[in-house]
Amino acid sequence: MNPAQNAQIALLLEVAGTPKPGNVDRERDLPDLGFEHFLAGTVGAGPGLRAAEEGAPVGEAFERAVSGMSQQEGGNTQFGALLLLVPLVRAAADGDCSPEGVTRVVEATTVEDAANFFRAFDHADVFVDDPPEDAEALDVRRGSDAVPAVEERGATLLDVLALGDDEDDVAAEWTGGFERTFWAADRLAELAGSAPASAVGARVYLELLAREPDTLVAKQHGAKTAESVRVRAQEALEGGPEVVEAFAESLVADGVNPGTTADLTAAGLFVALTRGEVSV
Amino acid sequence: MNPAQNAQIALLLEVAGTPKPGNVDRERDLPDLGFEHFLAGTVGAGPGLRAAEEGAPVGEAFERAVSGMSQQEGGNTQFGALLLLVPLVRAAADGDCSPEGVTRVVEATTVEDAANFFRAFDHADVFVDDPPEDAEALDVRRGSDAVPAVEERGATLLDVLALGDDEDDVAAEWTGGFERTFWAADRLAELAGSAPASAVGARVYLELLAREPDTLVAKQHGAKTAESVRVRAQEALEGGPEVVEAFAESLVADGVNPGTTADLTAAGLFVALTRGEVSV
Repeated sequence: MNPAQNAQIALLLEVAGTPKPGNVDRERDLPDLGFEHFLAGTVGAGPGLRAAEEGAPVGEAFERAVSGMSQQEGGNTQFGALLLLVPLVRAAADGDCSPEGVTRVVEATTVEDAANFFRAFDHADVFVDDPPEDAEALDVRRGSDAVPAVEERGATLLDVLALGDDEDDVAAEWTGGFERTFWAADRLAELAGSAPASAVGARVYLELLAREPDTLVAKQHGAKTAESVRVRAQEALEGGPEVVEAFAESLVADGVNPGTTADLTAAGLFVALTRGEVSV
Repeated sequence: MNPAQNAQIALLLEVAGTPKPGNVDRERDLPDLGFEHFLAGTVGAGPGLRAAEEGAPVGEAFERAVSGMSQQEGGNTQFGALLLLVPLVRAAADGDCSPEGVTRVVEATTVEDAANFFRAFDHADVFVDDPPEDAEALDVRRGSDAVPAVEERGATLLDVLALGDDEDDVAAEWTGGFERTFWAADRLAELAGSAPASAVGARVYLELLAREPDTLVAKQHGAKTAESVRVRAQEALEGGPEVVEAFAESLVADGVNPGTTADLTAAGLFVALTRGEVSV
């Protein structure tokens, strides 16, 4: 499989992995957002992922992937995962799917990439927090309306994401060498073969969730809830399958969705597939 | 979504639909053939499906789709479904996804299409029966070795499939205006909205299975078993969810796989998606 195909397989394995507490998986839908939306979102993202593989600028490929992903009725399914996968696909196509390789890709992003990143918000309803006080003009919720401000400031896509890397762990991957992505890939490699790939993905999702508070949960429900979810993920890992199931039921009942951790899982699966450490 | 993407969504919805007695679905793997192999097979088939959409000859697009589908470790996942989907994608790209439109596509197939159909058997281990006595040179199990005989006889792909349409309901679709495919699409349209699309697909799978004996079951286990499976599918439809579950468990336990009926379900889902009667 080529890099764009591995990215699609990673998205499918991520959503197939169950139980993945608080997220959609093959056993659990959320209200108005179900397993089938993720299947269709994966197919829709294909042209953008192939554009990334073929050398299109990162921002253009990302906007195209998000636009395609959004051609289903569930809304935002994989915006964060695609923001990780697009530079990883580019790095893999360059033959260097490593922390250094993907850092080279994100450091080469331009103002035009930033503009296309803002345009991507026109296609999907993404949950985001208020921007930093000195960066209100770059509020992503403005979508393409913010493009003139982006161009005026000469902000590259990496600059834009650096504004949010304290609050958003997808942005933190961009500015931090994709550290958690590669940690997840290493864990997937260690566990590969012990269960089907999607089940190993679900296990590593839970490990990621137990290590750091999920930033989407923090934005939607506050830092205390995010830390409580982290602790409960740790307890679930120690408690075994029944505790994991109960944890999964309770997060869905409370409307708590650790979506950033699912994005990191998809990115880790992509790296492990690319390196041949996980196979299907 | 474009026709090639709708074909991939149809394949994913088909395998996601559960319970689908005797076939892989999101709840059930077969020995050595699991849900993840179908996910990866769908991604792998992408380039061949896009070739069909873009006007490549049917045989070439089919061989490419099968070659890509086979880049996973489960073996043959969707050979029969792709043999239905490739001409349907071509018809949809021509703006006429109807019995007449797809019949025009299959009637236009050539000797070169037939040669590429035989070459596709080199990529996948497909279960097939002995050929008719007067057609041993065209035994598909010979794969590309049969190509000189195909060329010598001047057999088009439609001619080749017509040799097997008594024994194989995918071939019978080619020679019979895709009758069961369009029947399935009409039923999907009637049931759309009553449940998620994959669940409606599982229901129509069972209805197809109750109407005609599955030809893969007949080839592998004999006509009596195939007819018994048909009768039990009818009883399961009348008996409700618990009877369907018990039927599903029993087919997996007995190694009975109504794969042709799953192929027809995928093709029906494609038509219903294309006509906008089913959506995700």
